[in-house]
Amino acid sequence: MVTLKEIAQLIDGDLEGDPSMVIFGPAKIEEGKPNTITFLANPKYTSYIYTTEASAVIVDHSFVPEREVKASLIKVHDVYLALATLMNKFDQNKEFDAKISPNSQVSPSAVIGLKVGIGAFAILADNSIIKDNSQIGAQVFIGKNVQIGLNCKIYPGVKIYSDTIIGNNVIIHANTVIGSDGFGFAKNEAGQYVKIPQIGRVLIEDDVEIGANTVIDRGSLGDTIIKKGVKLDNLIQVAHNVKIEENTAIAAQTGIAGSTIIGKSCLIGGQVGIAGHIHIGDGTIVQAKSGLNSSTQPNEKLYGYPALGYSQYLKSYAYFKKLPEMADELRQLKIELQKLKSNE
Amino acid sequence: MVTLKEIAQLIDGDLEGDPSMVIFGPAKIEEGKPNTITFLANPKYTSYIYTTEASAVIVDHSFVPEREVKASLIKVHDVYLALATLMNKFDQNKEFDAKISPNSQVSPSAVIGLKVGIGAFAILADNSIIKDNSQIGAQVFIGKNVQIGLNCKIYPGVKIYSDTIIGNNVIIHANTVIGSDGFGFAKNEAGQYVKIPQIGRVLIEDDVEIGANTVIDRGSLGDTIIKKGVKLDNLIQVAHNVKIEENTAIAAQTGIAGSTIIGKSCLIGGQVGIAGHIHIGDGTIVQAKSGLNSSTQPNEKLYGYPALGYSQYLKSYAYFKKLPEMADELRQLKIELQKLKSNE
Amino acid sequence: MVTLKEIAQLIDGDLEGDPSMVIFGPAKIEEGKPNTITFLANPKYTSYIYTTEASAVIVDHSFVPEREVKASLIKVHDVYLALATLMNKFDQNKEFDAKISPNSQVSPSAVIGLKVGIGAFAILADNSIIKDNSQIGAQVFIGKNVQIGLNCKIYPGVKIYSDTIIGNNVIIHANTVIGSDGFGFAKNEAGQYVKIPQIGRVLIEDDVEIGANTVIDRGSLGDTIIKKGVKLDNLIQVAHNVKIEENTAIAAQTGIAGSTIIGKSCLIGGQVGIAGHIHIGDGTIVQAKSGLNSSTQPNEKLYGYPALGYSQYLKSYAYFKKLPEMADELRQLKIELQKLKSNE
Repeated sequence: MVTLKEIAQLIDGDLEGDPSMVIFGPAKIEEGKPNTITFLANPKYTSYIYTTEASAVIVDHSFVPEREVKASLIKVHDVYLALATLMNKFDQNKEFDAKISPNSQVSPSAVIGLKVGIGAFAILADNSIIKDNSQIGAQVFIGKNVQIGLNCKIYPGVKIYSDTIIGNNVIIHANTVIGSDGFGFAKNEAGQYVKIPQIGRVLIEDDVEIGANTVIDRGSLGDTIIKKGVKLDNLIQVAHNVKIEENTAIAAQTGIAGSTIIGKSCLIGGQVGIAGHIHIGDGTIVQAKSGLNSSTQPNEKLYGYPALGYSQYLKSYAYFKKLPEMADELRQLKIELQKLKSNE
Repeated sequence: MVTLKEIAQLIDGDLEGDPSMVIFGPAKIEEGKPNTITFLANPKYTSYIYTTEASAVIVDHSFVPEREVKASLIKVHDVYLALATLMNKFDQNKEFDAKISPNSQVSPSAVIGLKVGIGAFAILADNSIIKDNSQIGAQVFIGKNVQIGLNCKIYPGVKIYSDTIIGNNVIIHANTVIGSDGFGFAKNEAGQYVKIPQIGRVLIEDDVEIGANTVIDRGSLGDTIIKKGVKLDNLIQVAHNVKIEENTAIAAQTGIAGSTIIGKSCLIGGQVGIAGHIHIGDGTIVQAKSGLNSSTQPNEKLYGYPALGYSQYLKSYAYFKKLPEMADELRQLKIELQKLKSNE
Repeated sequence: MVTLKEIAQLIDGDLEGDPSMVIFGPAKIEEGKPNTITFLANPKYTSYIYTTEASAVIVDHSFVPEREVKASLIKVHDVYLALATLMNKFDQNKEFDAKISPNSQVSPSAVIGLKVGIGAFAILADNSIIKDNSQIGAQVFIGKNVQIGLNCKIYPGVKIYSDTIIGNNVIIHANTVIGSDGFGFAKNEAGQYVKIPQIGRVLIEDDVEIGANTVIDRGSLGDTIIKKGVKLDNLIQVAHNVKIEENTAIAAQTGIAGSTIIGKSCLIGGQVGIAGHIHIGDGTIVQAKSGLNSSTQPNEKLYGYPALGYSQYLKSYAYFKKLPEMADELRQLKIELQKLKSNE
């Protein structure tokens, strides 16, 4: 519970309306109720600002109403950033209890910082280190020699294999697995696979967020590395010895095969497949469901299976749709040409 | 253990054979053994009815044997429905113990109905509610304020984040995650992602079944909604604020991006990708592995990446296969045309 | 810690260098440090052998240096197999404690062999059997009547439903689910789905390895079968009644629909989709992300969606890229033909 005045200060906005109005929480513009605050960022939703029952709306400084708006307005420079700040205010760490559960199992050799929470039926194995303010959820497994930095949130059921190193402010969602063996086998003369032990580690830098039921395999030799600020969605596969550079975001169900390097600030859609041992340049944008099987230059926009340039794929696919007509025309031309030849 | 007479009554069928024959369980027609019952639904398997060792076969009323059948027959109007009813008779809740394990951790503020089971190392957080006859498996996590209706089965290792609301007769398979944060970030001026808190909920209505290792994210603002009778397979991604309407079935590894609405009674194959912020009409059928990136009308049948009409995609793909020949013909025509021109 | 002499004996290699040199562990050739051993298998990395700081390099017998190599060399017949053997030497079972945790819950009717480890918060349900030397990780669930053979490693969080049978030397990575219900429903007259109980089992033979967050559904009637030596990566979907024959390897995020049979010694890439009720021949190679929707002959190499022969798909796709040019040429030909006709 907070007043509009307090919210305007929090998000550094200009308030047009009643500063003492009390707000219980945020809502979508089309679902706003009295004493909620909403926002207008996408012009598609502009009409709702005149009908919303929400008590306040966050808008861009450039917004000029075309008719009366009943709600109070808070004008800001970046609506999405203001919204993120605001929602943080209402977000609570509900899955964590911020204390060490008597039903957890903590090795005597584990080192635990200040204000660390450890949930019920969670395990901290030998020589693991959890730094200040980090929350280890219920039923989490933290293997031997694992290090977890400051202010991390490890949600229930996450399994982190031994020797994994995790930085500060890292969030890992439920049932994700970090540090499982990579898929490495050598075929013997009898055609059977012999396991190549996977003795590398996973290194995760600061400010990384990882979704639920994702898997990041440990390196075979050397390490699998997720750099600062990377965001991974749910159900993603990161194979052994992959390296993902800073501030790259990858949507759900994408898979990256072994030893591939993904550059900085890439934006990779869902269900994308990326082959092993290639290098994707910085700033690459990949459409959902594309398949990349060779290295790419920086700042390309890619689409298709296998991937082409974005507009090249769209053009080719437009003609793919017309292939039956093209084949008809080709047949017709052959007939006409034949006629011309026989007329000669 | 049950007699053929009892089975015939259970599935409302006409028995031709020995009513006192004892049956231990169902079997496939090609693997039937004495004292098992099998079924014939797919004509491809008709020949097996003359050779099966099973003691009884469920068949359609229209079935007329072409030669001697040793097994007893039970004739019904719908073989698959009869089979489902029958198999229920032999299905047991083997993963549940129908009692509250002393090794579980139940908050004093949790409210538990009659005949509820709670498995070992399961957790019921504060203010959670489990209604009558529901079974909470081992190692399950039920977050704060979660409500679970009547007759639900929540299999081992499922993690349900706070505030999730689940109806009656819902089944959720092992290690599935419900209510994790959606993938929502705003980019700041330094090119870093700032987390947009995800403060909506997941609402799951009656009669929904969800497979193993699936993820359903909570809404960002507003809720992610799975309506009555929806069936989701394993390893599916349902992003924030998605709504799936009644009686839609979705096969494994399909992903649905944020804020998309899937209509009623759709049938969506495996590994399908569906973009965000679109609306798929009621009764849509989508072939496995298709990619949908725009809204669709009701009752369409779709195929391809990106998806086209089913038969349109098949036709275009038929010509795709012939592209090398088409290119040859085109080259040939050019040559012949050139000849004609020079002859002129 | 081991000497080069001992390593040379272990991998049956010829040592050229100091036999008393002490090695702490393996490393990648480009990251090698003193007292590590590395290897050269891929010619792409040959240049590193002249600069690596590693103390020793495993090379093929045919390797002849072009200039001075500071590191000791161990020459072998198969570098990858030698490496696998060597890494085993340094691999440890770090996720297991090789003892029965007092924090586990073991049914009095469970049967446990010699030298079995059972991790904290793990569950062995009634009548389960764990044979000698097998390690059951923390937070694992082993259902009723499950059998697990000799020398298995079941990593933390794995859930194995009742009646599953697992052979010897099987490895299953964290949070994988074995034996969940298949996706089987019959539609009733009201358009609602009625669950078909899934009462078959999962059978896993010797020497199988299964990655993390993978799902193998139990048979509906009859069993889902994974034969000897099969290797499955992470996040794979294996539906009810699938059978995968010996020594087939399948990469991450691939899905196999119900009742399909995959032959022996197949190599199936990541994110492949395989339809239900088909038979993939022995020795089939499938490119990543392909979609197979009909049965195939042995030893085919397949690519595409839907899959074609590998080189056929590549050829067609090469022309797909040129479709805009082909369409231009077609238009041009029409114009020229028109001119010729009007000149006549």
